[in-house]
Amino acid sequence: MSAPFFGDASPITYQGPDSRDPLAYRWYDKNRVVLGKRMEDHLRFAACYWHSFCWPGGDPFGGETFLRPWMHMPDAMAAAHAKADAAFEMFRLLDIPFFTFHDLDAAPEGATLAESVDNLKVITDLFQQKMADTGTRLLWGTANLFSHRRYMAGAATNPDPEVFVYAAGQVRAALEATHALGGANYVLWGGREGYETLLNTDLKRELDQLGRFLSLVAEHKHKIGFKGPLLIEPKPREPTKHQYDFDVATVYGFLERYDLLADVKVNIEQNHAILAGHSFQHEVALAYALGVFGSLDMNRGDGLLGWDTDQFPNDIGEMTLVFHEILKNGGLGTGGLNFDAKIRRQSIDPVDLLHGHAGGMDACARALLNAAAMLEDRAIEAPLASRYAGWDSAEARAILAGDVSLATLADRALERGAGPQPTSGGQERLENIVSRYA
Amino acid sequence: MSAPFFGDASPITYQGPDSRDPLAYRWYDKNRVVLGKRMEDHLRFAACYWHSFCWPGGDPFGGETFLRPWMHMPDAMAAAHAKADAAFEMFRLLDIPFFTFHDLDAAPEGATLAESVDNLKVITDLFQQKMADTGTRLLWGTANLFSHRRYMAGAATNPDPEVFVYAAGQVRAALEATHALGGANYVLWGGREGYETLLNTDLKRELDQLGRFLSLVAEHKHKIGFKGPLLIEPKPREPTKHQYDFDVATVYGFLERYDLLADVKVNIEQNHAILAGHSFQHEVALAYALGVFGSLDMNRGDGLLGWDTDQFPNDIGEMTLVFHEILKNGGLGTGGLNFDAKIRRQSIDPVDLLHGHAGGMDACARALLNAAAMLEDRAIEAPLASRYAGWDSAEARAILAGDVSLATLADRALERGAGPQPTSGGQERLENIVSRYA
Amino acid sequence: MSAPFFGDASPITYQGPDSRDPLAYRWYDKNRVVLGKRMEDHLRFAACYWHSFCWPGGDPFGGETFLRPWMHMPDAMAAAHAKADAAFEMFRLLDIPFFTFHDLDAAPEGATLAESVDNLKVITDLFQQKMADTGTRLLWGTANLFSHRRYMAGAATNPDPEVFVYAAGQVRAALEATHALGGANYVLWGGREGYETLLNTDLKRELDQLGRFLSLVAEHKHKIGFKGPLLIEPKPREPTKHQYDFDVATVYGFLERYDLLADVKVNIEQNHAILAGHSFQHEVALAYALGVFGSLDMNRGDGLLGWDTDQFPNDIGEMTLVFHEILKNGGLGTGGLNFDAKIRRQSIDPVDLLHGHAGGMDACARALLNAAAMLEDRAIEAPLASRYAGWDSAEARAILAGDVSLATLADRALERGAGPQPTSGGQERLENIVSRYA
Amino acid sequence: MSAPFFGDASPITYQGPDSRDPLAYRWYDKNRVVLGKRMEDHLRFAACYWHSFCWPGGDPFGGETFLRPWMHMPDAMAAAHAKADAAFEMFRLLDIPFFTFHDLDAAPEGATLAESVDNLKVITDLFQQKMADTGTRLLWGTANLFSHRRYMAGAATNPDPEVFVYAAGQVRAALEATHALGGANYVLWGGREGYETLLNTDLKRELDQLGRFLSLVAEHKHKIGFKGPLLIEPKPREPTKHQYDFDVATVYGFLERYDLLADVKVNIEQNHAILAGHSFQHEVALAYALGVFGSLDMNRGDGLLGWDTDQFPNDIGEMTLVFHEILKNGGLGTGGLNFDAKIRRQSIDPVDLLHGHAGGMDACARALLNAAAMLEDRAIEAPLASRYAGWDSAEARAILAGDVSLATLADRALERGAGPQPTSGGQERLENIVSRYA
Ligand SMILES: [Co+2]
Ligand SMILES: [Co+2]
Ligand SMILES: [Co+2]
Ligand SMILES: [Co+2]
Ligand SMILES: [Co+2]
Ligand SMILES: [Co+2]
Ligand SMILES: [Co+2]
Ligand SMILES: [Co+2]
Repeated sequence: MSAPFFGDASPITYQGPDSRDPLAYRWYDKNRVVLGKRMEDHLRFAACYWHSFCWPGGDPFGGETFLRPWMHMPDAMAAAHAKADAAFEMFRLLDIPFFTFHDLDAAPEGATLAESVDNLKVITDLFQQKMADTGTRLLWGTANLFSHRRYMAGAATNPDPEVFVYAAGQVRAALEATHALGGANYVLWGGREGYETLLNTDLKRELDQLGRFLSLVAEHKHKIGFKGPLLIEPKPREPTKHQYDFDVATVYGFLERYDLLADVKVNIEQNHAILAGHSFQHEVALAYALGVFGSLDMNRGDGLLGWDTDQFPNDIGEMTLVFHEILKNGGLGTGGLNFDAKIRRQSIDPVDLLHGHAGGMDACARALLNAAAMLEDRAIEAPLASRYAGWDSAEARAILAGDVSLATLADRALERGAGPQPTSGGQERLENIVSRYA
Repeated sequence: MSAPFFGDASPITYQGPDSRDPLAYRWYDKNRVVLGKRMEDHLRFAACYWHSFCWPGGDPFGGETFLRPWMHMPDAMAAAHAKADAAFEMFRLLDIPFFTFHDLDAAPEGATLAESVDNLKVITDLFQQKMADTGTRLLWGTANLFSHRRYMAGAATNPDPEVFVYAAGQVRAALEATHALGGANYVLWGGREGYETLLNTDLKRELDQLGRFLSLVAEHKHKIGFKGPLLIEPKPREPTKHQYDFDVATVYGFLERYDLLADVKVNIEQNHAILAGHSFQHEVALAYALGVFGSLDMNRGDGLLGWDTDQFPNDIGEMTLVFHEILKNGGLGTGGLNFDAKIRRQSIDPVDLLHGHAGGMDACARALLNAAAMLEDRAIEAPLASRYAGWDSAEARAILAGDVSLATLADRALERGAGPQPTSGGQERLENIVSRYA
Repeated sequence: MSAPFFGDASPITYQGPDSRDPLAYRWYDKNRVVLGKRMEDHLRFAACYWHSFCWPGGDPFGGETFLRPWMHMPDAMAAAHAKADAAFEMFRLLDIPFFTFHDLDAAPEGATLAESVDNLKVITDLFQQKMADTGTRLLWGTANLFSHRRYMAGAATNPDPEVFVYAAGQVRAALEATHALGGANYVLWGGREGYETLLNTDLKRELDQLGRFLSLVAEHKHKIGFKGPLLIEPKPREPTKHQYDFDVATVYGFLERYDLLADVKVNIEQNHAILAGHSFQHEVALAYALGVFGSLDMNRGDGLLGWDTDQFPNDIGEMTLVFHEILKNGGLGTGGLNFDAKIRRQSIDPVDLLHGHAGGMDACARALLNAAAMLEDRAIEAPLASRYAGWDSAEARAILAGDVSLATLADRALERGAGPQPTSGGQERLENIVSRYA
Repeated sequence: MSAPFFGDASPITYQGPDSRDPLAYRWYDKNRVVLGKRMEDHLRFAACYWHSFCWPGGDPFGGETFLRPWMHMPDAMAAAHAKADAAFEMFRLLDIPFFTFHDLDAAPEGATLAESVDNLKVITDLFQQKMADTGTRLLWGTANLFSHRRYMAGAATNPDPEVFVYAAGQVRAALEATHALGGANYVLWGGREGYETLLNTDLKRELDQLGRFLSLVAEHKHKIGFKGPLLIEPKPREPTKHQYDFDVATVYGFLERYDLLADVKVNIEQNHAILAGHSFQHEVALAYALGVFGSLDMNRGDGLLGWDTDQFPNDIGEMTLVFHEILKNGGLGTGGLNFDAKIRRQSIDPVDLLHGHAGGMDACARALLNAAAMLEDRAIEAPLASRYAGWDSAEARAILAGDVSLATLADRALERGAGPQPTSGGQERLENIVSRYA
């Protein structure tokens, strides 16, 4: 039998802020109670299968760097077992409560769909056993509808309906596997649901196809009794030139159009937010405002790069504001914090996977504590309430309720003479307040 | 009496493609019939009042360069008259059928709203007379709800309801002036309907305020019998960090949410499209697909700059594709091609205004001709139809109609064995075809 | 006599990290010794005159919001005095050791250059007296060669040599005023030294003109005995489409080409760094590596906006890395930390100026402390030295010294058989280490 | 023997602008004389080996789409032969005069460097024979120092000097192969000569290493009698976060610093220009102005995407301006127009390779004709000369020659009273002129 993938690494434990141990949690103390809830239950961390165990370290200009043993084994199912051993070993070392996976991360694609589905069954049975042994839970499952060449022009939005049908076959299997494993949500990532050029694209047709596909999945979800929401992960581009789930606002409009608001929520990622020209906080705040918040992919991008770097998060300032939104809105619900994050191509030691995840978890814990303190002090909420206080008057509420006409308001404005006087937005003062917490 | 602003400039006329006259139309031949309609009726060109007559040539790092005479006259109403003279002289020299204006472009702001409204009345009466004399028509009017300090934190979305009320007063006057002048549309530009920082912003409240405001305007429009659509002009940012009417998809979702789809359409601008991360063609195609196309601001940005440069258009290739969308979808309707365009800060000669507009009009005319040829040949439409032909089968139509379940489709996929084979997207071939026309 | 501009505001003092006073320093304790030097001497903070006292709060879509009293006084010189009173009052309240100004910030432009120079003399005499009274020093002076319409096509790079001559007149006066006031550096900001379009630009000529202008200023500096360096502030664009001092690397090449390396250094700004596609740390590290580091403009931009927002800094993580570079390289020298920063357009209360500056100073102090701790622990330096240790061998040093030919190396490679084995870049581990300090 | 890769495709020939044949040249008429030179000699087109024959169609989110036969052959050298057959067949069908390749494009990497060098020798011998047979010439060769994991942290700039040595071995072989094949230039692409994070990077050391490496190659070039220039291809980022050869200006500064201006020039690519924030025309004009112009990679990017799309060029307007620069500066010299371009991932038919190249060649031909006409008319040059005419006076020349001091100029400015009057930049007028040609 081969040596364990992580050698003699020990489980990572909470050691407190002053610890100098490079592999200790300094802030993440899972049983610590914050605003009445254990940290672990607030944060609901998940490790993803694909970046850590299925990516060889390549990029568009270079090949494999990681040399994972299971990528050089002749038997694909044996490799899938070895990969699962390494993955669950990492979950144990990190003491991370959840994981996430695509069908093809777990089990190799077969020569036919039937074979693929059988392979998936074998490995999800293995997952079930490992989950029982370790207590690791499934945050969400999903189907990979983007890597194979059959999906090069889209899955649901493919010009060929046969591809739509094939995708249906794959999604049913992945959704049922997710259900069997007790998954809390099911994700549909539309990386190929977009276009390379409008010259060969019928936008309207493709949106209708996508709406239909989502509706089919939602119906099936109810049929099998899966309770979790379906999640769409907005991303503006990459791999395609333009993706239909561009950002939260776009997805909201799409869900309205195809009457999917009851069943579908969004899984937001910082890296996708900034690629779409939004801050992470914006996307999260908007999702709560529109009632479509689902879950988070908790990885960061690089504001100077135009592609998805999927790095582990470490910007405490940004994350403090995001956790403030989450806490203010009652928490993550069935969602969680999935690290859709990959170590860098040059991070070729297995222990680098531990550094990446542990650093990310610790950064989240720290941001949670900051946000909780800010919320308890009403540091931002109090000035905000006061700023909008005028809208709480009966007169203003009547306007919003639709009880007053434009003409009435216009007459009122004419009567009042000089216009209203503005008051300071106080941005610098508010930023300084936040700095006290972050 | 002072010398005419444009000196002895002569009206610009069609001279044909070989003309070397720097101030002739080489492509825009207004009476030429294209696809059964006069060019002038296809293109519905409009010159805007603000950039050409109200902007002194300043930028964030420097002051006035143009030294327009009416900006140095002591009497504001006399200046407004002089400005109107110059503007209508330009419309005449260009032989441009439409114009557009904000209330404050036309008439000076008074000490009170009532005074402002009175000033506007005087100048719109003047417009009425000049329009009758010259035949120039009004494409749309709008109210400036963004320059004055009272609007610094928004008009409809201001934390102070008094500002909302004041804005209602301004919009009623501008809408009624537009109606009186026979305007074809009414625009609401939300340059301050957004935020500088989420720290002092209640996103949800502000969206509700904006929805209400639009509803009030829509009700009033019906009350006074104004037939044209209301237009929102999507723009992602600038002047604010984030504007609520980010792009076409965002506006669509907003209109759905506040039940405004029947009354409100979008006015799309290339410069705003690229700032939002979309191509111009994308925004136009999407607006038609979602049924919200209204009109175009026909100015270009610079893909390397992160702000709104509002330059006159000259990218024939890009415009050919946009006109192809327009023609394919039946034309501009009540909309038009408004040059929300400004000559550069260094273009300090009055004649530069003529060069800018004439070049833009000619570029549009050329793109229209290209697009018409492309459409007549079905150069792009034929390959597109063939690419999606599979979806025209009865079986595929049943899927889209919602007559088949996911389980049925999944079973079908399992039976079919090997997955579908992809076919070439043919992007290079299609691009070469377009090159033949552009 | 009018009320003081800042009302009854008290001087801001150090109160320690736990202070809840919104206008106290929590980290900036000017006499605290860090790595053997007082914080004040490390940080050399400067407030700038222009953003805080000369900008009315306008933006490209709206006018004045601040209503500064001196902007509404009929007598320009009296206004300049009132402005100076407010400015030095702010310096006193902040206890900030330095300030910076453009000639035209201080004194109004006259009808002729001679008048402008006379005005400047009057106000710089006033400055001299106020500096003596308060102990405030001048970090640098500069001439505004970008706001007036004469400079719309450049100052040194103008197609008209008369503009070059005029600029020389303005710079001599500003340089001599800076010298008279004991300025530590002299800055040349080239906001108009670039182009709007290559169609009307002779790139090569303009670069030669700019090289000559800088050489003239350097000669004059020596002639009058001014000891400080000249500083160029790289900025890629805005106000022009393209500026010649794009970034640090570009300026370095320019200084090499025109033999200016001995006299000219760079003044780096975070906001300009990110507009050029670089991190702030990159620009600082590169400037030290190339020997051209001069000073910093210590304001931040917004990674999601394409223009210069010039906000007060508050990203402790980013600044910690920048201060680490500074400390590692021996400090700021004659440079300092200038807040080329403006409060937001909506921050209309005078006290907002204090919030902005105090928050920025505190953020810098905190980052300095972080960086000092990191440096004392060699937290980053030790792993770095070990990573490059191979290059310290005699064999490797011989390669770098130019003692070995390509052929010799190539033969060596052939002999060694299998290629070298890579080692982990350890990025996640290093990021986690930095997180401990930031 | 297998069927030919391109089936029964016929050579592409010139058919004139009105041809409807999708695979004909409509503008590229190789023997047509333009400004005294054959089109083929002006344009010096080259097809690249890597994108067309070595890339399987994958992207970061999906695998192979093209299924090239030689990528599924068990014997690597037999595959290399099959690939060469397909490549030279494409060169023949296109009638393209040049090609370009990396060592590893041509021949498979061996278990040792020696084996790799031997493999390369076998295939370059094959190239020699095929070149003799077909008349195809080599525009440039290069070594792939970026794909293998040993180069993950750089080749010349690697922290491990052994990697520098290995790279020397590879470059000697590739340079000598290029020399043997009569290559006109030799390229060094520094895709890994940059960093992922400054935390593990010693910027100064790495720049010195890179300078040394280039110097070694330049020495060797002279030693073996290779006459062509070495070419660096500026690119700001991708694959790394930051590359040292960011843009033309940066490379110029680097060449100055390491005294390499005599031997090294730049190979400019539109896609890299825009990623660096410059227009293609800017980079070309600057390279000529600084005397470092070498050659062009003639592929385009997408202004809305943040990565290198390497598409075939088709923007006639942009290219017309670039060709105007080239013609004005005397042509391409030893350089050429290399299509470092790839068909899209969905373009899975072999004939798509022909569509891509033929469209690109035709677009270049058309732009060349436009530019030649513009140059003959002095359409842009005449207004430009007139704009700068002031600098041709004796007085102005004396300033540029360094014969006048700042003080003299400043005195002159004071004497002249009112400042100089600006004249219009005329941008719209000039853009309209260009539109006549493009
Ligand atoms: Co991502
Ligand atoms: Co994700
Ligand atoms: Co605009
Ligand atoms: Co507009
Ligand atoms: Co700035
Ligand atoms: Co600055
Ligand atoms: Co490229
Ligand atoms: Co290239």
